[in-house]
Amino acid sequence: MRYELYYWPSIQGRGEFVRLALEEADADYVDVARERGSAALMPMLEGKGPARAPYAPPYLKAGKLVIGQTSNILHWLAPRHGLVPKAETGRIWAHQLQLTIADWVDETHETHHPVGNAFYYEDQKPESLRRSGHFTGSRLPKFLGYFERVIAREKGGWLLGRSFSYPDLSLFQMVAGLRYAFPRAMTRLEPKHPRTVALHDRVAARPRIAAYLASDRRIPFNQHGIFRHYPELEA
Amino acid sequence: MRYELYYWPSIQGRGEFVRLALEEADADYVDVARERGSAALMPMLEGKGPARAPYAPPYLKAGKLVIGQTSNILHWLAPRHGLVPKAETGRIWAHQLQLTIADWVDETHETHHPVGNAFYYEDQKPESLRRSGHFTGSRLPKFLGYFERVIAREKGGWLLGRSFSYPDLSLFQMVAGLRYAFPRAMTRLEPKHPRTVALHDRVAARPRIAAYLASDRRIPFNQHGIFRHYPELEA
Repeated sequence: MRYELYYWPSIQGRGEFVRLALEEADADYVDVARERGSAALMPMLEGKGPARAPYAPPYLKAGKLVIGQTSNILHWLAPRHGLVPKAETGRIWAHQLQLTIADWVDETHETHHPVGNAFYYEDQKPESLRRSGHFTGSRLPKFLGYFERVIAREKGGWLLGRSFSYPDLSLFQMVAGLRYAFPRAMTRLEPKHPRTVALHDRVAARPRIAAYLASDRRIPFNQHGIFRHYPELEA
Repeated sequence: MRYELYYWPSIQGRGEFVRLALEEADADYVDVARERGSAALMPMLEGKGPARAPYAPPYLKAGKLVIGQTSNILHWLAPRHGLVPKAETGRIWAHQLQLTIADWVDETHETHHPVGNAFYYEDQKPESLRRSGHFTGSRLPKFLGYFERVIAREKGGWLLGRSFSYPDLSLFQMVAGLRYAFPRAMTRLEPKHPRTVALHDRVAARPRIAAYLASDRRIPFNQHGIFRHYPELEA
């Protein structure tokens, strides 16, 4: 089956977590808005799509099925492509980790939009500075520490022990994105989280991921996505 | 099996979405920290619990299984208690709706904590005022409009058509909480969202939910949870 991924074509954003899974799975997919432009997203978002329309991108079309919410897409996709153990306990644990990463993504986005999406970053700079200080000083170490402990306890180098799974791809993306957005904080924190850094490196070296990262399918980090680099927020 | 729910004992918070499902299911459960105090939550949060420890409450113990993340708990619990259709397409759709409600919960919390949890509301009042204006003016109508359209299209009065399911409980909770937190905005918006209001009323009238709401197991809304009433934020 050829999947259709619907997401904004100019950013990694939340869609990137799905792209990474599709790439690792060597799945047959089309990144619809990158081929046809953002207008392709509109009918669904205006409620003109199928009855069970998603609230927001990303969403994945798989035949007649339309699946929204990043973590839900991954939860559905992973067992079909060997990206999660088959047993229910493993699937629940992987999903729990992915949902915790989703919370981390939300908090990362809030660093440059604490007042809301309706305003440009430039119109919420003082608020962003306070939020970013809280993020890099408190929240970021807490999230990194949690995932570091998980890897340590699971004893196999991955978040599910010796089983590679889709939350590993997502944790890779967090490290990559946070290096771009908060390089000073990450330089300070990475030595304390060696297992997380090693996991990032192992994911980056997987053949299909390495090929993807080197391709023009990987959109570069930029100032429109979740991970944005504003040096003043690390001052 | 007797479930153990671990959540803060003095607020509804995210745990309330799980409590509502357990109550509607007439499940055998103990609300651990309400019986033994918040200290009961600590071992797990300090990493002294099982290897696969959750990041934060709520979490549910079901025998040896420990499940974290509100939406994940509901996704696991619902098919065991008839709170979601058995077919995978129904389960995915219900989960997608629940995850959208989880985003809505996060944004509701941000209205009084846009700078972060490390600071009291009193230390982020100007930021809260801006965020709340954006929330009641733009985000709240968007979320309500989305769920209103879903109910309309599904044609059975519930979010999954004629099948009552756990996201209905969660949407009830959103309406109840938002009425407490933003009564002026809700008074203005409710007439435009009659199906959502009717769904709230139908949930409240379900015998087990009605009994729960009238019991002292239902913690009243207060100024420590997700839904807080600060009149100045609606000025």
